[in-house]
Amino acid sequence: MPLRVVEVHQNILRKNSTMARELRERFERNGTYVINLLSSPGAGKTTLLEETLRRLGDRYRVAALVGDQATDLDAARLRRSGAPVEQIVTGAECRLDAQMVTAALRDFDATAVELLAIENVGNLICPAEYDLGEDLRVVVFSTTEGEDKPLKYPLAFATAHLAIISKTDLAAAAGFDRASAKANIERVHPGIEIVEVSALRGDGMDEWIDCLDRRIASKRVLV
Amino acid sequence: MPLRVVEVHQNILRKNSTMARELRERFERNGTYVINLLSSPGAGKTTLLEETLRRLGDRYRVAALVGDQATDLDAARLRRSGAPVEQIVTGAECRLDAQMVTAALRDFDATAVELLAIENVGNLICPAEYDLGEDLRVVVFSTTEGEDKPLKYPLAFATAHLAIISKTDLAAAAGFDRASAKANIERVHPGIEIVEVSALRGDGMDEWIDCLDRRIASKRVLV
Repeated sequence: MPLRVVEVHQNILRKNSTMARELRERFERNGTYVINLLSSPGAGKTTLLEETLRRLGDRYRVAALVGDQATDLDAARLRRSGAPVEQIVTGAECRLDAQMVTAALRDFDATAVELLAIENVGNLICPAEYDLGEDLRVVVFSTTEGEDKPLKYPLAFATAHLAIISKTDLAAAAGFDRASAKANIERVHPGIEIVEVSALRGDGMDEWIDCLDRRIASKRVLV
Repeated sequence: MPLRVVEVHQNILRKNSTMARELRERFERNGTYVINLLSSPGAGKTTLLEETLRRLGDRYRVAALVGDQATDLDAARLRRSGAPVEQIVTGAECRLDAQMVTAALRDFDATAVELLAIENVGNLICPAEYDLGEDLRVVVFSTTEGEDKPLKYPLAFATAHLAIISKTDLAAAAGFDRASAKANIERVHPGIEIVEVSALRGDGMDEWIDCLDRRIASKRVLV
């Protein structure tokens, strides 16, 4: 990249860090646990999130923010879970940033939210650079994408706290090599927790929900 | 976006257009037909391209450029077709641009190449803004990604000359609604040619190869 472009980019990331820190402090004050979901387009984030909100909606006050380049299709899907959902249309931008999240939070009362799920724009590259003040960054990677994706998009996997292998119902049809996929995730991020789910069939959803419960509880103890 | 960022971005796109025009003139002089493949990560670009180069390698002098954020895994796969392949590692960049293509062409004799296939970085957003001097922009969209993707990533579909629905072998397992997917492509880009393939099984490959042949031939008549 030319020097001037690098500078502008670094400025943007610096500003984002500052705003993300403010968001994190605010979430802390409000007792809100925040997850940021990253993946390719079509890896199954929305289906997973819809099911997650449905399962957790009776135990926590949940809400969701959804980033999308052009439509509010995902927000409409997520609203079926009963949770309040705010859509962020990003236009030419390939990711959410802390400023967009801050602006979206103006539109609804986030002080009472206990679990805020942010569904990022479908993109394995740009979103990885932007902290949104989340507690848990989750990278979702579907069995139909090919086992090499963690090596090809390392930043998303390296910066995530948890990896979800999604669409396990399609694993056999896609000839998915589970061992190789897990080895590739491990290579980019040694020791990262990996959960395998089919949000459609429900397989692995209990494990994922338990894992979220555990993390929310341990944050409450720490705060 | 803040004004300064918009300006820098527009400058980048303007510079890219100039370099893309130079590339296009050069490809014209050399009689090289160029395709630029765009898709999400894991939509099947590499498998499709490997099979395409294999099938066309005895009729045209073929070569490929492959963009990837971090690895040369795809280049290694494409080289199995016997074609010369140049890898472009893009690092933090989320797409190829005309400058990267120009630089990559320095490394091999492109004057004799009749068909140059450029596999872009797996990303449905950023690559759509960057002209690479191609004759044919192809957007690849797999049956496992969900039928709504054309609406969610309209620029990729609107700027493409041809859409490929890939992984048709997984359509049934994924519950893919073909009519709805095609209607969504049509909505974003009325009249665009759509080819359905399974590069793995070979279904639709003859149609795709015919389609390329036709377009290469008609360009030769025009030049």
